[in-house]
Amino acid sequence: MTYCVGIRLNAGLVFLSDSRTNAGLDAISTFRKMMIYEQPGERFMVMLSAGNLSISQSVREVLQVEKIDNGTEEGLTIWNATSMFDATRVLGAAVRRVYEQDGAALKNAGVDFNASMIFGGQIKGEAMRLFLVYSAGNFIEATRETCFFQVGESKYGKPILDRVLTPATALDEAAKCALVSMDSTLKSNLSVGLPLDLLVYREGSFQSDEIACLDEHNPYFRMIHSTWGQRLREVFESIDDPRWDGGDAAHPLMVKSARYEPMRKITKPSERIV
Amino acid sequence: MTYCVGIRLNAGLVFLSDSRTNAGLDAISTFRKMMIYEQPGERFMVMLSAGNLSISQSVREVLQVEKIDNGTEEGLTIWNATSMFDATRVLGAAVRRVYEQDGAALKNAGVDFNASMIFGGQIKGEAMRLFLVYSAGNFIEATRETCFFQVGESKYGKPILDRVLTPATALDEAAKCALVSMDSTLKSNLSVGLPLDLLVYREGSFQSDEIACLDEHNPYFRMIHSTWGQRLREVFESIDDPRWDGGDAAHPLMVKSARYEPMRKITKPSERIV
Repeated sequence: MTYCVGIRLNAGLVFLSDSRTNAGLDAISTFRKMMIYEQPGERFMVMLSAGNLSISQSVREVLQVEKIDNGTEEGLTIWNATSMFDATRVLGAAVRRVYEQDGAALKNAGVDFNASMIFGGQIKGEAMRLFLVYSAGNFIEATRETCFFQVGESKYGKPILDRVLTPATALDEAAKCALVSMDSTLKSNLSVGLPLDLLVYREGSFQSDEIACLDEHNPYFRMIHSTWGQRLREVFESIDDPRWDGGDAAHPLMVKSARYEPMRKITKPSERIV
Repeated sequence: MTYCVGIRLNAGLVFLSDSRTNAGLDAISTFRKMMIYEQPGERFMVMLSAGNLSISQSVREVLQVEKIDNGTEEGLTIWNATSMFDATRVLGAAVRRVYEQDGAALKNAGVDFNASMIFGGQIKGEAMRLFLVYSAGNFIEATRETCFFQVGESKYGKPILDRVLTPATALDEAAKCALVSMDSTLKSNLSVGLPLDLLVYREGSFQSDEIACLDEHNPYFRMIHSTWGQRLREVFESIDDPRWDGGDAAHPLMVKSARYEPMRKITKPSERIV
């Protein structure tokens, strides 16, 4: 399994990926899932990948040289695309090329053609953009309303992203949010594991040096891991327990619903409750 | 979809279920998923169900009268079982009876025989027990190490349960924890919905009056919903953002891993990074 998250904010982009892969529970390995494509001052792109590792590694390899016929000699590539939309079309074409090569054999072996990618960045002359690419090579783009994408084991870590992120969130705060989201995922799913790759891109910079690999010794991630769990429990304890009798505005009662009855009890075999 | 959680503590049992069912996104209904079986002073059992609604409704109906041949005239039923293990065997037999009746036709229609149930309670002469019953009628029991079960959309709400619950947790605190877990699930998955059924059972009581149906007007759940989200954001804001330069013990730096290099950048088509 895998957990990757990509976030598009007004101030920039944040990417975070884990590095665990597994083929069953008894074949766990470390493979990093972030690729960075940079022409300083011209274009900056990041890909995070989830799914079958043989597919995503092939997609990476193909992507570097994939071209879509556009009537020119060199064709449309991620290196000359003038928009992130076009660059993402090239990624889609790379996925389809791998499907052409491997899809039938995988199907014969009973293996799904399973791959998904987060692909985002900025090309000079355009705003930053963030895409989610599916295994058919089709894709969707993040908007102001939905400013992040997740691939892999996304559910454990989604609530904190839902609660915190808006396009106005500051970059470092969003990086923190992604790390908290990752921490919850690591705690609940063994198939997601350290080290983590974190990248922060600032709008209009067309390069980034804020790239870190975080393992179990990283002081910041250790702080997040211990502090978040502890404060979460403190907050939890600070909220009143339910009260079944009495109660006032400050300590609300667990009163029953005005519309629905509490569940009735069945007390013998023949009793019907509908 | 559905979200149900059952918790076994030293002090008692907690059960919480939502009430949304859906057949596709355009056929959403309210069906409650908690059944309570009570013979005051003798036995108290609760079932929460997830999966195909036609299956779980049939299982409910069959369970009330299901019997396993034990050489006696009346057979082994949930009403005369002397252990929760035996009562759960009866539930497993009810699931298998529904499978015999409907399994082949469902398979012909391309529908999985999809059902899972949390079943727990106490029978006089025995400690409280909590089981998770699968669609094949087999089951597992909660232990001190794993004191809760979830069925349905379990992932969004699992991190808070993992962080808070131990067998020593107080009953009302566990009820609060289940409601926080439900709140996170409701926020992230449209196919889980109000009203909620909550039941708290105190050890050795063989009955319960702490049964509530919580809809959107319930003051306690409203308090949980607004307070938890707000305090979570406050805690989140109270944690330092990552710092990419400087840093000290109190404000740890986002230093790189000692073992792993940060991801390198690809700057031209022919570059190889392994």
